[in-house]
Amino acid sequence: MAHCPRLAGGDQFWKALKHNKTAGKHNCLALDCFATIRYPPCTMRLADMRIHSIAIADPPLRSSYGLHAPYALRTLIELESDAGEIGIAETYGGEAQAKQLEAVRAQIIGTNPFRLSGFLSPMIEGQGSGHARSQTYQVPGENPLDATTRTYAAIEVACLDLIGKTVGQPVCDLIGGRVRDEVPFSAYPFYKHEGGGGEGEDSREDEYGEALSPEALVKQVQRMIATYGFTSVKFKGGVLEPDIEIETIKRLYAALGSSVPLRIDPNSAWTVETSVRVGKELARELGRGGYLEDPTEGLENMAEVRRRLVEKGIETPLASNVAVTSFADLPRSIQLDAVQIILCDHHYWGGMRQVQHLARLAKTFSIGMSMHSNSHLGVSLMAMAHVAAATPHLNYACDTHYPWQSAEDEVVLGGRVAIKNGCVRIPDKPGLGVELDYDQLARGRERYARCNFRKRDDEAEMRRRVDPNWKRILPRW
Amino acid sequence: MAHCPRLAGGDQFWKALKHNKTAGKHNCLALDCFATIRYPPCTMRLADMRIHSIAIADPPLRSSYGLHAPYALRTLIELESDAGEIGIAETYGGEAQAKQLEAVRAQIIGTNPFRLSGFLSPMIEGQGSGHARSQTYQVPGENPLDATTRTYAAIEVACLDLIGKTVGQPVCDLIGGRVRDEVPFSAYPFYKHEGGGGEGEDSREDEYGEALSPEALVKQVQRMIATYGFTSVKFKGGVLEPDIEIETIKRLYAALGSSVPLRIDPNSAWTVETSVRVGKELARELGRGGYLEDPTEGLENMAEVRRRLVEKGIETPLASNVAVTSFADLPRSIQLDAVQIILCDHHYWGGMRQVQHLARLAKTFSIGMSMHSNSHLGVSLMAMAHVAAATPHLNYACDTHYPWQSAEDEVVLGGRVAIKNGCVRIPDKPGLGVELDYDQLARGRERYARCNFRKRDDEAEMRRRVDPNWKRILPRW
Repeated sequence: MAHCPRLAGGDQFWKALKHNKTAGKHNCLALDCFATIRYPPCTMRLADMRIHSIAIADPPLRSSYGLHAPYALRTLIELESDAGEIGIAETYGGEAQAKQLEAVRAQIIGTNPFRLSGFLSPMIEGQGSGHARSQTYQVPGENPLDATTRTYAAIEVACLDLIGKTVGQPVCDLIGGRVRDEVPFSAYPFYKHEGGGGEGEDSREDEYGEALSPEALVKQVQRMIATYGFTSVKFKGGVLEPDIEIETIKRLYAALGSSVPLRIDPNSAWTVETSVRVGKELARELGRGGYLEDPTEGLENMAEVRRRLVEKGIETPLASNVAVTSFADLPRSIQLDAVQIILCDHHYWGGMRQVQHLARLAKTFSIGMSMHSNSHLGVSLMAMAHVAAATPHLNYACDTHYPWQSAEDEVVLGGRVAIKNGCVRIPDKPGLGVELDYDQLARGRERYARCNFRKRDDEAEMRRRVDPNWKRILPRW
Repeated sequence: MAHCPRLAGGDQFWKALKHNKTAGKHNCLALDCFATIRYPPCTMRLADMRIHSIAIADPPLRSSYGLHAPYALRTLIELESDAGEIGIAETYGGEAQAKQLEAVRAQIIGTNPFRLSGFLSPMIEGQGSGHARSQTYQVPGENPLDATTRTYAAIEVACLDLIGKTVGQPVCDLIGGRVRDEVPFSAYPFYKHEGGGGEGEDSREDEYGEALSPEALVKQVQRMIATYGFTSVKFKGGVLEPDIEIETIKRLYAALGSSVPLRIDPNSAWTVETSVRVGKELARELGRGGYLEDPTEGLENMAEVRRRLVEKGIETPLASNVAVTSFADLPRSIQLDAVQIILCDHHYWGGMRQVQHLARLAKTFSIGMSMHSNSHLGVSLMAMAHVAAATPHLNYACDTHYPWQSAEDEVVLGGRVAIKNGCVRIPDKPGLGVELDYDQLARGRERYARCNFRKRDDEAEMRRRVDPNWKRILPRW
């Protein structure tokens, strides 16, 4: 006869449960049937959802989308169980995201968080059939086509954190079990203007300074590596003339050596011709465990770049989180061999389990897996680390914008999550392993209230701060 | 400040934990830090694994593989936690399967069951890259190429049952959350000889009698539907002349009406020509939500059958659990459009989560999903129901051999699992929702010890009992 571990607590526990209304109809809780019952029913229900729109200082980083505004917007979600336990998640920010979360409140309050991901599955199931989407013209987090998968993901992660904290297990061990304790991330250098993000009282120090040349970019990467120990580099291109970006990669290669894989991501800024030229000129530099990420727009163009590079004997794989952002994109991408590496992101793919499904699919078709990032704080970083830890087929270091955020804005209790030797370690704590610092959260909400930004618009910001006539042009070169 | 639900048990629980050696290094368990700790660490470890090889009476069912022996072999696994909780699973039987399970004992004892599925993932990860396999010449459960995925699956299910029983949640809600409370199964008629299975003291009554003609088959189905309320029928063909099997389906259609989907599965017994002919002649009967399952051998032949049927305007989909039995089979199958419906089976695909991955992949490529079965008892039936409940894209009623087994052999406490209106209902109980009847288990072990069978060999049985010269010939017709 097996024993419930909670019986270790003795009769007091059961007496309390017997009189606990939440135990409800389960008459097995009567003390006189101790001999036959073993399993206390888990009657956990969601009692509350709290949605916090916050703003965090973000440095003036450049990409082909334009310029990062002084604030990045994020949403923190708390799901509280009727036992007072709290699960948290972080996702994209701004008004639309908060509204989408608010819209599911009535559906989720009162439900069992273990069942919620099944209950809400219509929000993610549609993506398998039709509705291909891309991020070519929509920055991540602002694409209406993934509104439901983003919202679902935030609820799923908060439920998993809540479950983990309730049953005493890390999230990665709830979703299949970790295959690694440490998750490697990449340095993520950007061309940038001077300044550390924020405005007025929120202005942050600029430890990296302006970087609009190959030399400055190399210094930025070296500083980032010295601080965090990254062992691979993902470089955001599509900003300066391709020849300058080629030169930047070549200097990075010279400075870091061939053991540090390099990637360049111009977010679809180039023609097929330019993409092939860059691929050829950087065959050596990107060839050693690196990749060419979204050089050009659309699956057909990506496929042509791939074909022409392979014809020339260049095997540098093409990666994407622009042309392939949902399951519906995959059949065509696979048919064309347009993308050899997918950058997953639980935030918009529909949560952690969808990322695991994606990884198994990718492995089946010999497609590599990396991970996409947006400006984020420690709750997202930990969620990314947990899903990465529980996804066997994730064979490239993950992206993270985390070095671009600062301790002043972190909402995680105890401050910023450590990245050591380029890795985030899964802590020996339940759930995501982090909790909210409510004072810091309040400051983030105040910052949101103060600032004028309610959605991400890098093009508008570029016009506001750099060139009033700037437009996103694809392909630019 | 949130509270651990276990705190409801008062100080007694914590005092006990404080002195519990298994709580070990977690110094937060000291009573004086109640104010700051909330989450008791889950230190559950696997303390024991018990492997039970059993034999159960199995009627003389026919297929293209040959004849079912008087006994089907199954293995029951118990995983016991250090708290004395027990998780169970059922899988294929016989000597080889028991040995494969025994071989992982040293790896799993002492580990945390939440982490085990990640820890053991190398056992299932190989299948994504290379190692295509088929069941054309190997009956399910006897294919050496899926030995590790079978073994992994059994461990995974037992862990999930153990976890569910420990945290008070049904298995379907641990793996993503149920999308349905009732899982539909199909009637599974076979041509059969007289007799109910078993030998000597184990002989079982034959409620269905001999069925080697269309008329007898229809009676068998009607009886099965009257007992279980099935609303679809999967008919095992490949046994008699194709014209007799066509006649059988036509009579089933006449007897049951167009609202009951019909499937026929000759296990690769036919040529492409015969498959196309059967597909044409049964276009109406199989067309309404039914399918043509593994009519012929191999992906190329399946693809040709499909092509020729579609050319004739016949959209009856082809299903498979013979040509497609692993992720490695999928790229080629999809490229050829060889299979439009996959019959999943957590027992050999590598467990419940792999089935969920498969379903997402199938949905991505507009492939339908059904479920395969082998002779089994209630523990397998419940596991099949749980994974089906938590797999959104499972759009055909599942197969089950369950009607062919009898109450005398059931090892589930309380007797056979109910199938009502053709469905198994997910019970409001933790884990798989069933427990072992140890007396019945002991009888199953005794039966195993008594009988001479140590592996499944339908061809040998056919020679032993029907025709000493019988050989499996593919294609036969």
